[in-house]
Amino acid sequence: MGVTSDRVEYVCRYGGNGTTTSGVNVSIAAEVTMEIHSVCLPPKESTFQKLKHRLSEIFFPDDPLYRFKDQTWCKKLVLGLQFLFPILQWGSHYDLNLFKSDVVSGLTIASLAIPQGSSRHVAVGPVSIASLVMGTMLSEKVSPVQHPTLYLKLAFTATFFAGLFQASLGFLRLGLVIDFLSKATLVGFMAGAAIIVSLQQLKGLLGIVHFTTKMQLIPVLTSVFHHTKEWSWETIVMGFSFLLLLLTTRHISMKKPKLFWISAAAPLTSVILSTLLVFLIKSKVHGISIIGHLQKGLNPTSTNMLYFNGQYLALAIKTGIVTGILSLTEGIAVGRTFASLKNYQVDGNKEMMAIGLMNMASSCTSCYVTTGSFSRSAVNYNAGAQTAVSNIVLAGTVLVTLLFLMPLFYYTPNVILVAIIITAVIGLIDYKAAYKLWKVDKLDFLACICSFFGVLFISVPLGLGIAVGVSVVKILLHVTRPNTLVLGNIPATQIYQSLNRYKEASRVPSFLILAIESPIYFANSTYLQERLLRWVQEEEERIKANHESTLKCIIIDMTSVTAIDTSGIDMVCELKKMLEKRSLVLVLVNPVGSVMEKMHRSNFLGTNSLFLTVGEAVADISASWKPQP
Amino acid sequence: MGVTSDRVEYVCRYGGNGTTTSGVNVSIAAEVTMEIHSVCLPPKESTFQKLKHRLSEIFFPDDPLYRFKDQTWCKKLVLGLQFLFPILQWGSHYDLNLFKSDVVSGLTIASLAIPQGSSRHVAVGPVSIASLVMGTMLSEKVSPVQHPTLYLKLAFTATFFAGLFQASLGFLRLGLVIDFLSKATLVGFMAGAAIIVSLQQLKGLLGIVHFTTKMQLIPVLTSVFHHTKEWSWETIVMGFSFLLLLLTTRHISMKKPKLFWISAAAPLTSVILSTLLVFLIKSKVHGISIIGHLQKGLNPTSTNMLYFNGQYLALAIKTGIVTGILSLTEGIAVGRTFASLKNYQVDGNKEMMAIGLMNMASSCTSCYVTTGSFSRSAVNYNAGAQTAVSNIVLAGTVLVTLLFLMPLFYYTPNVILVAIIITAVIGLIDYKAAYKLWKVDKLDFLACICSFFGVLFISVPLGLGIAVGVSVVKILLHVTRPNTLVLGNIPATQIYQSLNRYKEASRVPSFLILAIESPIYFANSTYLQERLLRWVQEEEERIKANHESTLKCIIIDMTSVTAIDTSGIDMVCELKKMLEKRSLVLVLVNPVGSVMEKMHRSNFLGTNSLFLTVGEAVADISASWKPQP
Repeated sequence: MGVTSDRVEYVCRYGGNGTTTSGVNVSIAAEVTMEIHSVCLPPKESTFQKLKHRLSEIFFPDDPLYRFKDQTWCKKLVLGLQFLFPILQWGSHYDLNLFKSDVVSGLTIASLAIPQGSSRHVAVGPVSIASLVMGTMLSEKVSPVQHPTLYLKLAFTATFFAGLFQASLGFLRLGLVIDFLSKATLVGFMAGAAIIVSLQQLKGLLGIVHFTTKMQLIPVLTSVFHHTKEWSWETIVMGFSFLLLLLTTRHISMKKPKLFWISAAAPLTSVILSTLLVFLIKSKVHGISIIGHLQKGLNPTSTNMLYFNGQYLALAIKTGIVTGILSLTEGIAVGRTFASLKNYQVDGNKEMMAIGLMNMASSCTSCYVTTGSFSRSAVNYNAGAQTAVSNIVLAGTVLVTLLFLMPLFYYTPNVILVAIIITAVIGLIDYKAAYKLWKVDKLDFLACICSFFGVLFISVPLGLGIAVGVSVVKILLHVTRPNTLVLGNIPATQIYQSLNRYKEASRVPSFLILAIESPIYFANSTYLQERLLRWVQEEEERIKANHESTLKCIIIDMTSVTAIDTSGIDMVCELKKMLEKRSLVLVLVNPVGSVMEKMHRSNFLGTNSLFLTVGEAVADISASWKPQP
Repeated sequence: MGVTSDRVEYVCRYGGNGTTTSGVNVSIAAEVTMEIHSVCLPPKESTFQKLKHRLSEIFFPDDPLYRFKDQTWCKKLVLGLQFLFPILQWGSHYDLNLFKSDVVSGLTIASLAIPQGSSRHVAVGPVSIASLVMGTMLSEKVSPVQHPTLYLKLAFTATFFAGLFQASLGFLRLGLVIDFLSKATLVGFMAGAAIIVSLQQLKGLLGIVHFTTKMQLIPVLTSVFHHTKEWSWETIVMGFSFLLLLLTTRHISMKKPKLFWISAAAPLTSVILSTLLVFLIKSKVHGISIIGHLQKGLNPTSTNMLYFNGQYLALAIKTGIVTGILSLTEGIAVGRTFASLKNYQVDGNKEMMAIGLMNMASSCTSCYVTTGSFSRSAVNYNAGAQTAVSNIVLAGTVLVTLLFLMPLFYYTPNVILVAIIITAVIGLIDYKAAYKLWKVDKLDFLACICSFFGVLFISVPLGLGIAVGVSVVKILLHVTRPNTLVLGNIPATQIYQSLNRYKEASRVPSFLILAIESPIYFANSTYLQERLLRWVQEEEERIKANHESTLKCIIIDMTSVTAIDTSGIDMVCELKKMLEKRSLVLVLVNPVGSVMEKMHRSNFLGTNSLFLTVGEAVADISASWKPQP
């Protein structure tokens, strides 16, 4: 405790007016014995202990082994098995009621899943952003029409790398990587991706045969208006009718959440209706392209399709990493949303490993990158799903469809799938969220806009990169140019608050009380030094102009200085020296643990220059100025 | 004020023990009327006003037009001219005494400057880091021996771009860019650069003729030991003798700062001595290479040497930007150091424009990138320089030397220049600063080590880039995994401090008081939510184990949450909902102005969920739990 000011005790008298809500003025004049408290160093820890603590906060913030603490070996084994196979947790008390709920919800999602997944023409899945991105990134380099096998190979390989990347992130407990994709970035990104995908669908909606492989706004629109001769009016009429139908059902469901099943059932109904329609008019109308023969049976294995050398390997890896990050972001966000609804917690890193392993397995069974889908999970939740059994029901239904019902889709027109995709992606344009960003935080809105235009006009990974860059620059800017405040005392209290914000607060004569609202780092130490000196200069000029008592002491409230580095410490030392030259005393108030420790280690601390509260500093220093009796 | 809790007033009694330094216990029992203060919104500002304020803090932190405020037009004109031509400021009261000091100091620096600047073989100047880097970057691509004209052209062009870059930074008021080179980075960088330059000098010190053009440790050492046959013992003996002499004088000056003139005079003395020695023994010894014929006269113009197209343009621009940043860092640091010694302030952006324009002019007069040199400025300051006149004296002396005294350097051996360079760069290895970094801040030390090894083994710009990256990651890491604390009350006070750090602090029954030590951003909102919930869970388990009164209220002290974004606000809302499900009340204390504003705009604020101090929150909420009379 030798590093701090001596404990001084004296009597401080104050009087003030307190106003009660009833309007009666109560005058108080209390005599309080004020003790000056010393500022403590945090408990001593070795470098190794600190490193351990720091690393565990970085990599194990959720303390995953928490439940294993203080348990017997046998219990630990059971918990470990439950950790690996969650069915052991809920399996023991599964009953008929839970099963009923699971069957209903499983069939409900199946009605959503089957029309989405049954066409080889839907290169990008309709909901997941990761699917959209995989489609755009791959088809810019390889045409799915001209080189369908290569395209498939690349999709499986990218899926494999996505899975590998996700599983490694989870295994290395680097879940924090996805924290850098802020919600603001994703709002802009999803809107941009939705528009790009909708534009791509113009090909199917207008019945155009020759179309650009590029994804940006300008080449796509050019392509659309260069091929007006290929527009097919039958396709257009049919497409827009069903699009209108689907958008209407979506609108109804949004207005009345209870009618959610209308929009949930609409895709399957549309598929059935349009298939029937085409079947009936097939002899008269020829302009509508249909799905045609679909292969029956299960997904074939695709291990032989993985592609580990050759010129497109870099593309596959890049696509894999980008889609991997995106599918993680979506999957984990979905997991967290439903966990918070039901008040349990998900382990982000465990979730990553699960999604990653799933994608690695997918890539060997002719599937491309998948993740937890928000809309499907919402339907599942709303339909009353209780456990993973509902997913088993879904899988069974899809299996039956794949094995026996595929020929029924022979006459399904491609344009209906286009309409379903457009309806789904339009839902991703969350203009309300964008408006809220604008209202609350202009810089967040900027990140949103950057990612939107970046995706729309440049490219998907670059747009995403720009948005992350804007978010990071925002953090750095806050650190580089932190806020400084002049504090004043709220009469009759020990509270010191911003003079600018609290009109009742008043300056304390002979003192200038400043607060720094950020860590002090190399990136801001010069700025802070200049800014603090400017405050001192302005205060001195103000005092001179108003003929007040001269400035004697600068108090800096360090409560919000949550960290300091060596440049910061040098700055404080420098500032102290400079103020001493002007016969001003510099006093620090309430440095946090780590700051206190570093100042102690660099031998900065003089006696009587540290206090626990601003009130104590003011009281003690003004007492020391009084002539000694 | 409708957004805050109602003002409630009641009487709170407390008693406690205050310990005086004299050891007498004083028991107090004061009756204080406690008023609950409302949390204010900051004064209303339009988006435009906020943007203006923010931009002025980012780009004009030093308020450069401060002195022009509230002045007459005439006075403004005078001040403006003084701003452009500082001689108008000090010229009016210049006298003979000041002139004497300036002449003495001017001659002193001249004795340092002449031997440093007189050889066409000294591709890199001995002191400035920027010179070292220009040498290393250019000669890796173009050999100064094989293509001397191209090399010169590139040096002038790089200087031109360095100047252009510096002047633009200053003009655009982007001075904050150089703040990102922390002192820790520079310590490592300078040590690495010093070693690389010393290694290059082995060529001259050992008399080797065939030498590698690469700069890294390994190729240079390979080159040295592959050419042992070329080693010249005469050169080695002479070089090491003078190196020993120079290092000894440097050591003496460091031990006794009063004898600084010994090391200041040593270079010129060594040059004279060695030149005489070689002149005397020239007929007997042949292995020592000498400077030979030097061109007399002033620097020729070099506008025709500037090189604005061709394959090396990119190299010149890259070198220009890197050296430009480095020379700014050094120049401004030097300016700030001496400003703080004499207690005036320098305008960083004005300084940048000055250095930039100087370099652009230099590039047209056969000079390469220059900046304020620390050692030379120190000599100037120590020798008593008062104004810029000392620089005019220096320039005059150098002019006379260039015009008339160049033939005197005919017999100066190259090895003596090598010895001077090595002595100078060894001074750049600041191992004491590195040790202090290790002691105070391990992550700063890591940045230092990264830049050291990066420069030594990879390349100069990449080493610098890695070091800046480490520094930025350090900031981001602090933001991504911020500290959270559990607070307790220090008995008989209204002070709430960390339980871990202040052993006298104690928990308040039924309350859990937490403090967040960082802004809440997208990058940490998920972590914080999980971490805070873990604190709550741990507290509930602790209470259960100890059979204490149940937890009812979570108080979060927001004092150190200096900023929030939309993800952060969502997190707080979410947390509030999750805690409500567990029948826990969430209360926020003392949000700073910007946070308060954003929470208000996003309609987060409920009644009775905001307090100005933790003490008031605890008092008000516990009062509300008592049965109403």
